[in-house]
Amino acid sequence: MSRIAYVNGRYLPHGQAGVHIEDRGFQFADAVYEVCEVKDGLLVDEGRHLQRLTRSLSEIRMAEPRHPAALGAILREVVRRNRVRNGIVYLQVTRGVAPRNHPFPNPEVAPGLIVTARSINPAEGRERARTGIAVITTPDNRWERVDIKSVGLLPNVLAKQKAREAGAFEAWFIDENDYITEGSSTNAWIVTGEGVLVTRPADHSILRGVTRMVVLETAEDLGMTVEERPFTLAEVRAGREAFITASSTLVMPVVKVDGETLGDGLPGPVAIRLRSVFHDHADYGRNWASLTK
Amino acid sequence: MSRIAYVNGRYLPHGQAGVHIEDRGFQFADAVYEVCEVKDGLLVDEGRHLQRLTRSLSEIRMAEPRHPAALGAILREVVRRNRVRNGIVYLQVTRGVAPRNHPFPNPEVAPGLIVTARSINPAEGRERARTGIAVITTPDNRWERVDIKSVGLLPNVLAKQKAREAGAFEAWFIDENDYITEGSSTNAWIVTGEGVLVTRPADHSILRGVTRMVVLETAEDLGMTVEERPFTLAEVRAGREAFITASSTLVMPVVKVDGETLGDGLPGPVAIRLRSVFHDHADYGRNWASLTK
Repeated sequence: MSRIAYVNGRYLPHGQAGVHIEDRGFQFADAVYEVCEVKDGLLVDEGRHLQRLTRSLSEIRMAEPRHPAALGAILREVVRRNRVRNGIVYLQVTRGVAPRNHPFPNPEVAPGLIVTARSINPAEGRERARTGIAVITTPDNRWERVDIKSVGLLPNVLAKQKAREAGAFEAWFIDENDYITEGSSTNAWIVTGEGVLVTRPADHSILRGVTRMVVLETAEDLGMTVEERPFTLAEVRAGREAFITASSTLVMPVVKVDGETLGDGLPGPVAIRLRSVFHDHADYGRNWASLTK
Repeated sequence: MSRIAYVNGRYLPHGQAGVHIEDRGFQFADAVYEVCEVKDGLLVDEGRHLQRLTRSLSEIRMAEPRHPAALGAILREVVRRNRVRNGIVYLQVTRGVAPRNHPFPNPEVAPGLIVTARSINPAEGRERARTGIAVITTPDNRWERVDIKSVGLLPNVLAKQKAREAGAFEAWFIDENDYITEGSSTNAWIVTGEGVLVTRPADHSILRGVTRMVVLETAEDLGMTVEERPFTLAEVRAGREAFITASSTLVMPVVKVDGETLGDGLPGPVAIRLRSVFHDHADYGRNWASLTK
């Protein structure tokens, strides 16, 4: 079956899905995006993803291309047309097409909107979670507003590539005070020697991961002790376990950092448990409209 | 006359010039660019622009889409087809089209290459230079490698928009040590009370402006005292004059900073002189091949 993409109001064969070369997403990274998990044909946490999108758009003063309820309908239609049972749906909003000039187009132009979806075999993630992943660390050289989910991802691309070349799955950024901020496309977590779950607070230095938020709530529901505070690489090494979270990886145990095995080198029980119960806590199959009633 | 754009090997009507939605320039800002002045139908400093492009590509380990000499021929052909006598030519190289995934595509895909050109009435810049421009200042929140001329320009867009809304032409970024780094699309200069021309060294915190480089050489040819060192806003206010440089603005006097008039509020003699002799010092009308002989 050929893939279908949504581009500015039209459903197009994926191979023909294009944007103009003067789309500001292409020439200025003047665009934001969301990636939402699809499970059993349903969107996971659609409402929270669309709320975050609204926040990203607001932070860079970009117009909403559609009402969130209409966006949700487009996401679900793209998932349906591509017959994605399990995988991800990707949405990108740009400030539109205008002759190249840094300031916002004046008069305003229509925002651009593209949506794609693709299947991912859930067995891949399960197998990866069974063995755990390796991460490397790299200095955080990104801009100061990575809480805005913009497509300005070149530093993330370079970090992820560095990880791949080191045989690792993810790269953790380390700030100038030696604290880990987050991964190149995931949030970072540890369980301390005292069994406390720790993740960095959602300030401007990390992305406000939707999966991160659900895991925080899940951990509290399970009666775990949780601290939102920065943590160092030394704490990772001294801790009981580590893991990453993202919509595309869910909860993924980390067993090696910078080539050094953590503990016994096996996925930790907290990560395994959070992964196994995650979908019981996510807003699974509820759309934006139902969430805001 | 309708405009023509070069896109991945083809000359297309501008309105039909598109890239695929999974071009990595669109989804990751995984792309670099150059903007080159066109004067009297000839490219100004083509050689230096293509040398810088080669450096940008190398820093992010992206393949050169063509030999620089071939790129120069494409630039000149786009200028010719658009009958641009005076204006700019824009070139963007991306890491190509691949299913969305942060690491470099493996196997490698062909890089993307687009080129556009447009006319600018030189009277606009002359008029602006006659009165001088206003700048505002804003904290530098960009990533740590802005010497790489990537399309990840969202912070620059936001800064330039802030300037426009304050009635200013440019925004100067200020680093955490209170030094000015550069403008959102231009380099920054002052002339001190002692008559010394000062501009920030071309480390990782500013773009290595081609116009900046030519102005440095010009100033030395004219026997001016030049210092490459960081300077503060206080030095701007205490100095004799200030100006900005870029391929699209050339040397442009600054007469107001954050709403405060500098000196007598008129363009300074050093800026005026450097602007007037700039094209005698630029590599004007010489192509890449002639420069490297």
